[in-house]
Amino acid sequence: MKRDSLKVALLGCGVVGSQVVRLLNEQSADLAARIGAPLELAGVAVRRPGRKRDAAVDPALLTTDAEGLVTRDDVDIVVEVIGGIEPARSLILSAMAKGKSVVTANKALLAEDGATLHRAAREGGADLYYEASVAGAIPLLRPLRESLTGDRVRRVLGIVNGTTNYILDQMDTTGASFTDALEEAQALGYAEADPTADVEGFDAAAKAAILAGLAFHTRVTAADVHREGITEITAADVASAKAMGYVIKLLAICARSEDGRSVGVRVHPAMIPRSHPLAGVREAYNAVFVEAESAGQLMFYGKGAGGAPTASAVLGDIVAVARNRLSGARGPEESVYAGLPVHPMGETVTRYHISLDVTDKPGVLARVAEIFARHDVSIQTVRQEGHGDDAQLVLVTHRATDAALTATITNLRELDIVRAVAGVMRVEGDETP
Amino acid sequence: MKRDSLKVALLGCGVVGSQVVRLLNEQSADLAARIGAPLELAGVAVRRPGRKRDAAVDPALLTTDAEGLVTRDDVDIVVEVIGGIEPARSLILSAMAKGKSVVTANKALLAEDGATLHRAAREGGADLYYEASVAGAIPLLRPLRESLTGDRVRRVLGIVNGTTNYILDQMDTTGASFTDALEEAQALGYAEADPTADVEGFDAAAKAAILAGLAFHTRVTAADVHREGITEITAADVASAKAMGYVIKLLAICARSEDGRSVGVRVHPAMIPRSHPLAGVREAYNAVFVEAESAGQLMFYGKGAGGAPTASAVLGDIVAVARNRLSGARGPEESVYAGLPVHPMGETVTRYHISLDVTDKPGVLARVAEIFARHDVSIQTVRQEGHGDDAQLVLVTHRATDAALTATITNLRELDIVRAVAGVMRVEGDETP
Repeated sequence: MKRDSLKVALLGCGVVGSQVVRLLNEQSADLAARIGAPLELAGVAVRRPGRKRDAAVDPALLTTDAEGLVTRDDVDIVVEVIGGIEPARSLILSAMAKGKSVVTANKALLAEDGATLHRAAREGGADLYYEASVAGAIPLLRPLRESLTGDRVRRVLGIVNGTTNYILDQMDTTGASFTDALEEAQALGYAEADPTADVEGFDAAAKAAILAGLAFHTRVTAADVHREGITEITAADVASAKAMGYVIKLLAICARSEDGRSVGVRVHPAMIPRSHPLAGVREAYNAVFVEAESAGQLMFYGKGAGGAPTASAVLGDIVAVARNRLSGARGPEESVYAGLPVHPMGETVTRYHISLDVTDKPGVLARVAEIFARHDVSIQTVRQEGHGDDAQLVLVTHRATDAALTATITNLRELDIVRAVAGVMRVEGDETP
Repeated sequence: MKRDSLKVALLGCGVVGSQVVRLLNEQSADLAARIGAPLELAGVAVRRPGRKRDAAVDPALLTTDAEGLVTRDDVDIVVEVIGGIEPARSLILSAMAKGKSVVTANKALLAEDGATLHRAAREGGADLYYEASVAGAIPLLRPLRESLTGDRVRRVLGIVNGTTNYILDQMDTTGASFTDALEEAQALGYAEADPTADVEGFDAAAKAAILAGLAFHTRVTAADVHREGITEITAADVASAKAMGYVIKLLAICARSEDGRSVGVRVHPAMIPRSHPLAGVREAYNAVFVEAESAGQLMFYGKGAGGAPTASAVLGDIVAVARNRLSGARGPEESVYAGLPVHPMGETVTRYHISLDVTDKPGVLARVAEIFARHDVSIQTVRQEGHGDDAQLVLVTHRATDAALTATITNLRELDIVRAVAGVMRVEGDETP
């Protein structure tokens, strides 16, 4: 298809959208050279056209008629950076029904209803690209979708939420409490006024669902993801991890089961050894660790959010779909041939770090150890700290199912010699069996 | 194009080739699902068919007639893992002339004569993919070619040779000499009996040329790359760097000049701060740091060599070209639209760490400082160590052109008060201007 230009419709003109406009303008000659035809911005759908915007945005292109814009005959590519489920989904579906290719950064929509989008893309003969939906600027989905497609991914372990990483890093570095670190993150613009989506792990869970689907060629939605946030992490937890040579990170973990017949997808805080490559990921950076059978261990690191980094990923996708349109080709479709079920959290194999406040008398360890043995959970290390009313047992287990570990904790709480289960945290990234 | 199967011809069946065969066999069902048609191994060209090989390789597929194999009418994809310039180049060109797509891991050939291969691909309507040629299993070229194509790369800074990283890491960790660390690397199979290509930086220079071409959309050959190896690095250099909070790494550095009108491409040992993400890259791992205008700082980390990791990258490319063939599409062509010249090393802006053995008398620093001033090189830090015959001045400069720094060193050698220039090392990854 020889074309004078390819027309792009942009939905949303906030932090990311305005950077997309800026890059389309500033890089227009380079983009045209890379694509083989110039890109032209056909229109920008916004809710409030009167609002003050980046100087790069030509007011004449603004419209409130998003539906009209995405179905315009001359539009080739629709870029959706509104976020949220509706109206984003309806607009994307309208565009694809007209054969427009779509580039989106919308993790929530992909994690909730990616199947519908992929089906619409297939039926409309359109491309659906979404590199910016996970880990912002880091090229991660394309490597998973394409580079590693001849390999077999075993596990994806990532820091995919910059806000919580900033908070945990501050807690680790300065000893701050969760509340103080959150306030600082808010003051710096790393956390929103309502931080729920970040600190409760919803954002990371959506990304985990997308990563798991791509890594394992199966369909995973946000509802399949076991999710725990970081609001209960105390300065004492962080200090205790630090003393043992660990750091606490909010991890998104996608793993095949040992028999390869199911996958586990979870987001929760975990202790990782300071020697692990993910331990050095500071501030609001993201990093994703991928283990594949042949490739071995890979890591991808960079900025997971922000206008310009996210726009960079969006532009990469725009170039790809533009090239596909010119050559009449299509990018990779949804790959779900493996059809692996997502197993419940109880079947996940992990390790626990447990702190117990105990009464300080002989025989305590024997009784505690008996509870672990009852559930077939073996203990890797145990040490006693303090004396009298401050006596504490700190245990780290070997790998066991989460169900067995949970049952162990339940039984420990029932023991008269256990005054309190002071802390329970999973341990990851440490290959001790 | 509906096809019963896509036929693959393999050139070479050594460490990488035998792993490619293994993966094609083991993963055949998954690969067929990902591609949309099964892959079939049409033949394997080897020099010595009688040699003992991996059990995965069907002896009936072996042939010594490589030219006949790559031009066979039923072959769709040629995978070249022989390495070296000839006969690899002739075979690739023969294959492309017949319209076969080519996947190669051949960094030396791409860095010497990539232009010829790309032209042959274009003329033959064939794909040329070479992810495995740089940094083994790490998906790096596809992100540069595709994900970052809407951005503007400023700099690529990488550890792209595992052998030298292993040697330098051993020297840093154990205090070993270069010779001892090399011997250990040889004993472990990380270094070849003739280690020249690795320790003199030829391997890294070829990779730097490929990376620079992709990052800056221009044409760079191995001959354009300024190259220094690690054979002169002493245990004292490593210890001195360590004492200052630095680590010595062999870096491949590709950077736009400050005015954006030329590029510099170089491979040399350099001191980097221990806090830099590349400093933590241990043993034979590779990692590449990319700075782009919008994406910011990205890092890619993983295994840079080895049969299975390299085969993983080859398989990813096979899947891509197979999918392209089925859909009648083509992958990205050579992108050289920027046509930027490679500037000489003298124009590169860098910093130097310099150790001078000096006579211990008043006025020495003033005379040394005058030499730096004469060349407009400003000094960031200076300290004196030892006394009398052991007196040493250790200086770190601000950024200056390599030509000015070299001239400074030349003049310093001529000073009567300088008994010897004991060490000169570039400092990178430290953004002090």
